[in-house]
Amino acid sequence: MTRKELINQIFTKKTFLCVGLDTDIKKIPAHLLGEEDPIFAFNKAIIDATAPYCVAYKPNLAFYESMGVKGWISFEKTIQYLNENYPQHFIIADAKRGDIGNTSAMYARTFFEEMNIDALTVAPYMGEDSVTPFLQYDGKWVILLALTSNKGSHDFQLTTDAEGERLFEKVLRKSQEWGDKDNMMYVVGATQGKMFEDIRKVAPDHFLLVPGIGAQGGSLEEVCKYGMTKDCGLIVNSSRAIIYADKTEKFAEVAGEEAKKVAEQMAKLLS
Amino acid sequence: MTRKELINQIFTKKTFLCVGLDTDIKKIPAHLLGEEDPIFAFNKAIIDATAPYCVAYKPNLAFYESMGVKGWISFEKTIQYLNENYPQHFIIADAKRGDIGNTSAMYARTFFEEMNIDALTVAPYMGEDSVTPFLQYDGKWVILLALTSNKGSHDFQLTTDAEGERLFEKVLRKSQEWGDKDNMMYVVGATQGKMFEDIRKVAPDHFLLVPGIGAQGGSLEEVCKYGMTKDCGLIVNSSRAIIYADKTEKFAEVAGEEAKKVAEQMAKLLS
Repeated sequence: MTRKELINQIFTKKTFLCVGLDTDIKKIPAHLLGEEDPIFAFNKAIIDATAPYCVAYKPNLAFYESMGVKGWISFEKTIQYLNENYPQHFIIADAKRGDIGNTSAMYARTFFEEMNIDALTVAPYMGEDSVTPFLQYDGKWVILLALTSNKGSHDFQLTTDAEGERLFEKVLRKSQEWGDKDNMMYVVGATQGKMFEDIRKVAPDHFLLVPGIGAQGGSLEEVCKYGMTKDCGLIVNSSRAIIYADKTEKFAEVAGEEAKKVAEQMAKLLS
Repeated sequence: MTRKELINQIFTKKTFLCVGLDTDIKKIPAHLLGEEDPIFAFNKAIIDATAPYCVAYKPNLAFYESMGVKGWISFEKTIQYLNENYPQHFIIADAKRGDIGNTSAMYARTFFEEMNIDALTVAPYMGEDSVTPFLQYDGKWVILLALTSNKGSHDFQLTTDAEGERLFEKVLRKSQEWGDKDNMMYVVGATQGKMFEDIRKVAPDHFLLVPGIGAQGGSLEEVCKYGMTKDCGLIVNSSRAIIYADKTEKFAEVAGEEAKKVAEQMAKLLS
């Protein structure tokens, strides 16, 4: 999906919500456990119920990989279901990969060519040649970790170098030598509040993928106040607060209602 | 495997070689392609031929994941084969993971509990809570990326902060607040040469996992000159130079011979 198409989706649907498919077998409704593939059954129902209120889906690979081969099958089925039924939705594989060049190239081939995923989260620690293999595909995106939502983000990301630049700022600046606003986004946690102002100084036009509202405590208003651009420039993710809002047979319906509430808030913030 | 057991293996077998199972369907001998699971068939033959000459195996997850469900099955079979037939060998999953706490905890459970892998490579960018979930298992290890072997390692890892400390040094120092030499190692590329002296100033006793000899151009002698400790302190990985040394039906035999050559060099360097 191109940047223009993404922006068009956001303003047409009046939402910039991404639903995080962090699907955990221990947290899904008990009545699904009798299904042949409970994880996929859960995802399918959640997707059908929330699709009108979001522009993106983000399965976190860790949740699938933690179940080995079975989990990988559920992941592939979920991606296939999205591709076939919701081609207008932006698909993000939250993989946080990053390896030496030839290895990153293999990941890029798998996720972009074979699975037709739109974007992949990538860790910046290994530098340029771990990132650029992902930038060789038209309409595909790297979403580079910049300033994450967790407590440990302070350990290294905020380190100030001899020139007064913090590590996350160096990641933002340096990576713009490799890609641009048409193929690169950044992960910035919603818990970072006013830091969005600093982010926008270095990356004024890039889209930001923002996890951390809901269960992790970030505020949507604050994120928009400091991070929104004229093109919106934000994809805000919510996982647990939507997908686990209810654990009865009505789980999907309730997830849809929760997504709708967030989308209504977003519509106001967009106008 | 405990540190004591690892050191014992190294001095008994007189080798600190790790064979990297970076198995690529496009590079394995053609006659294996008719096998039901060519990747596993290749790994099994390579393992049987090289086991006397190495103390560790390191499958790189990217190579398996790039084949989707099939690749994941080959990976699990390889781990199971190692556990059943070579319990004295140290198994490293080269996964370069690193996510927020609850997600890292899921990875830890999968790799350490379910698959009985000894060690996992982890990316440090997200800080403490992305690393500590991996440190809760007796006899299991985190191998944290410190100074990698690729060109892009210069982009961020060498950034000097306001106190004169480089990022890789901060990673080495800070992470010693979370784990110790009994459950933590570091990745340091063989291509970094004299930098091993600087590494040893901050982490004098920790084991280092050293990729980059052979195909990537690092020198074993130089690594040992600057990085070896009285307990050896090194696990040196070779992948392509061993596993793809020959592409005929004799591939495993030749891989064994190559591993033996490296091991003989290591025996001299150990004494």
